[in-house]
Amino acid sequence: MTGIKPPFFEIGPKAYLYGQDIIDLAKAADLASDRYDVDVIFTTPYVDITRVKAVTRRIHIFAPHMDPIKPGRGLTDILPESLVAAGAEGVMLNHCERPLSLKVLEQTITRAKEVGLTTIVCADSCAEAGMIARLHPDIIVAEQTEKVGTGDPCGTEYIEDASKAVKDVDPDILVLTAAGISNGQDVFNTIYAGADATGSSSGVAKAADRAAMVDEMIGAVRRAWDERHDASDRMLFKKGRFEV
Amino acid sequence: MTGIKPPFFEIGPKAYLYGQDIIDLAKAADLASDRYDVDVIFTTPYVDITRVKAVTRRIHIFAPHMDPIKPGRGLTDILPESLVAAGAEGVMLNHCERPLSLKVLEQTITRAKEVGLTTIVCADSCAEAGMIARLHPDIIVAEQTEKVGTGDPCGTEYIEDASKAVKDVDPDILVLTAAGISNGQDVFNTIYAGADATGSSSGVAKAADRAAMVDEMIGAVRRAWDERHDASDRMLFKKGRFEV
Amino acid sequence: MTGIKPPFFEIGPKAYLYGQDIIDLAKAADLASDRYDVDVIFTTPYVDITRVKAVTRRIHIFAPHMDPIKPGRGLTDILPESLVAAGAEGVMLNHCERPLSLKVLEQTITRAKEVGLTTIVCADSCAEAGMIARLHPDIIVAEQTEKVGTGDPCGTEYIEDASKAVKDVDPDILVLTAAGISNGQDVFNTIYAGADATGSSSGVAKAADRAAMVDEMIGAVRRAWDERHDASDRMLFKKGRFEV
Amino acid sequence: MTGIKPPFFEIGPKAYLYGQDIIDLAKAADLASDRYDVDVIFTTPYVDITRVKAVTRRIHIFAPHMDPIKPGRGLTDILPESLVAAGAEGVMLNHCERPLSLKVLEQTITRAKEVGLTTIVCADSCAEAGMIARLHPDIIVAEQTEKVGTGDPCGTEYIEDASKAVKDVDPDILVLTAAGISNGQDVFNTIYAGADATGSSSGVAKAADRAAMVDEMIGAVRRAWDERHDASDRMLFKKGRFEV
Repeated sequence: MTGIKPPFFEIGPKAYLYGQDIIDLAKAADLASDRYDVDVIFTTPYVDITRVKAVTRRIHIFAPHMDPIKPGRGLTDILPESLVAAGAEGVMLNHCERPLSLKVLEQTITRAKEVGLTTIVCADSCAEAGMIARLHPDIIVAEQTEKVGTGDPCGTEYIEDASKAVKDVDPDILVLTAAGISNGQDVFNTIYAGADATGSSSGVAKAADRAAMVDEMIGAVRRAWDERHDASDRMLFKKGRFEV
Repeated sequence: MTGIKPPFFEIGPKAYLYGQDIIDLAKAADLASDRYDVDVIFTTPYVDITRVKAVTRRIHIFAPHMDPIKPGRGLTDILPESLVAAGAEGVMLNHCERPLSLKVLEQTITRAKEVGLTTIVCADSCAEAGMIARLHPDIIVAEQTEKVGTGDPCGTEYIEDASKAVKDVDPDILVLTAAGISNGQDVFNTIYAGADATGSSSGVAKAADRAAMVDEMIGAVRRAWDERHDASDRMLFKKGRFEV
Repeated sequence: MTGIKPPFFEIGPKAYLYGQDIIDLAKAADLASDRYDVDVIFTTPYVDITRVKAVTRRIHIFAPHMDPIKPGRGLTDILPESLVAAGAEGVMLNHCERPLSLKVLEQTITRAKEVGLTTIVCADSCAEAGMIARLHPDIIVAEQTEKVGTGDPCGTEYIEDASKAVKDVDPDILVLTAAGISNGQDVFNTIYAGADATGSSSGVAKAADRAAMVDEMIGAVRRAWDERHDASDRMLFKKGRFEV
Repeated sequence: MTGIKPPFFEIGPKAYLYGQDIIDLAKAADLASDRYDVDVIFTTPYVDITRVKAVTRRIHIFAPHMDPIKPGRGLTDILPESLVAAGAEGVMLNHCERPLSLKVLEQTITRAKEVGLTTIVCADSCAEAGMIARLHPDIIVAEQTEKVGTGDPCGTEYIEDASKAVKDVDPDILVLTAAGISNGQDVFNTIYAGADATGSSSGVAKAADRAAMVDEMIGAVRRAWDERHDASDRMLFKKGRFEV
């Protein structure tokens, strides 16, 4: 595990961007990660991992997928060891655009542990999130697939249900709730409602000024987290728990 | 088209190697390509494309696959534009470990032409080679799948049949005949028997001294090509066609 | 080959219908096939093949797909021999909802010939139709995928181009041009424009009165075919070729 | 749920057999099911479901797979409603030869409940069995994939672990432990060791006398079950729990 701790934020440019645009986005994310002291997972296209690694300092570089193979045949498979060698710290698995069978998911999480990659595994429902928790990945994305790319974020109830489904099985797993995040306000609402983390893909990639949007979103993570904890402290104070 | 001309050689380390071993192999191939004046296609794992590009001068860097998408969604898809930006000159398609439907193959060749990538398309039989020729890729690999990784190369008859199947449809397509190539002698025999090109994957990747094997094989390409043409000249000479 | 000859018509209820509705549709197709003396291919869901066979006399029962396996493992694969035993005469391959790689398509056509099943192979473009012709299936469906289910039929030019692409390679292959056929008039236009055959899936399955629609469409095949040949005869007569 | 209760036995002829051999095997299973009063799940190739239904009285006919679609497009998909109409009582899902993503598995179990099909879901490890239990299928097959078709059955420890993994989550789910069952003795050992059920595929399909093997195996289910319960009763008796 790479030391990622809440609150954190995931950015996945997918195939919306390529080349220099990926590099520039990664740099902007690196700056904002530092400025707001928020861990950032940057899910990087395979071909860009080494270049993103070379120009960033603080963001956590994840690959979008890998295969559970060992060194050997596999012309187009993604070898776990090759990701580590390229500079990745982790890997995303089971995204709705690349669903895995249970068996392959189990094998791939095992391989990730073998080579020292952090795992962020996507679930499509609270039921799925609870099932995947039994495989003990580091992070679970509880994303409602039907909201991917819609600009309509998940509600508070979903955030709580997803978190409970996961933490009832393994309280050490971090839970990222996303899908439909399109600006800083969406980010704020999601974190303030209780999520460990959130993230954005098209919301960042399609923004008119991507660097500004990254700054807005990551800033919102920090602000929401701090306000939530202040509010929580005030609540405790009111209840007399903080009295001396 | 990147200016690749016969005789040429393809090296695909697949997932046998990763990290520094890929870089070292690419450098060895680059040296041998220069030394013997033989074009070399280096089919490079996605994550290593930029690093191989940075340390080589003469080899032609190909990706092992790409998807026919345009910029947009596609978390784990390989965007054609991203390969160009990373430094690839071409792309391999339809390898037996990643077979494509006819429709996807047609679309992907079209996308390759749009972004300026050279295409090397694998066929599994002479019939398939002839069919694929109708899509006018730059190079066709006429590989007998059952020989992949066996160390038992194709015979002369297959080389001739495959070449004829392709060139009857489009004489501009180059034909690479491979599968089962495990040392310089196999390479020599294949080129001497009439192939435009040959290649090796496990034969190189599993060699005790990979750099030496690359040198041996690429040297054999040049020697076989020159002897074949000398022999052909002598034949013509004997027949009186070269008399003054 | 089962003796199917032009003009013929293909009906594929897909998963639009099930159970008794499939049986009723098959009976209606059987009646119309007899009434208009038009061969009908009825592409039947696997589970319904034996029941359709039991209640029909003249239609040609095709499976929607099969796998190139031989008897052995394969829990969910469709064994060619099992289709013959169930009463199928042929098999559809490479439909846009079940695209095959070139290699698998080649193997499956070979298996079909081994067990005596007629093959109807779908192509998505004229280029694809010409390529598939090299594998010598009995029938090629030259369907423009983007029109499947749209109610907007292919034009005359496409019919001619598709037919030429196929028959230049192998004049014995029959060509079915479809996609977007939603009533008898569409059928008439397609056959009159020169197609050997046409077909319908959603156009039949979603009709208010499916039996009436089947009768209308198959009747239109016959009428268009006869008028086209009459017109052709008159043309020849005018040109003096029929004078005594 | 179709009223299947322990001890029961599953037979899956897969693609080893076809046509009349499937029918004959189903009849033999039907006879043995009656003779030994053992419920039998007969996992039937799609094309044979209606014929097997027509000639059997007691066995439970299951399809080997289905897709989570609703009536509509889907040329080669297996529509749940079509299986019910054909006479199936249940469906097998997630077999190692047809692995499903978590999302599709969840959707398909939901569809099965909607149309009234019993579900038997395959798991590849105890961890997987426990995860799948959270989706509440009727039966879980805890099969070690590496033993499929080997003739080397699972040990007692695996049977207990698999059962515990499932029943800790949902005690109503029945657990079938199989893989490597090749004769009556293997069956006896598995049931006697504590399994609710076991099954065989190649062990039956490749037997010289399939009907005799079916009788031997299903007889062994009954004998093992009765002896196990007798033994258990004697144990309780010895412990004084049965004393009056």
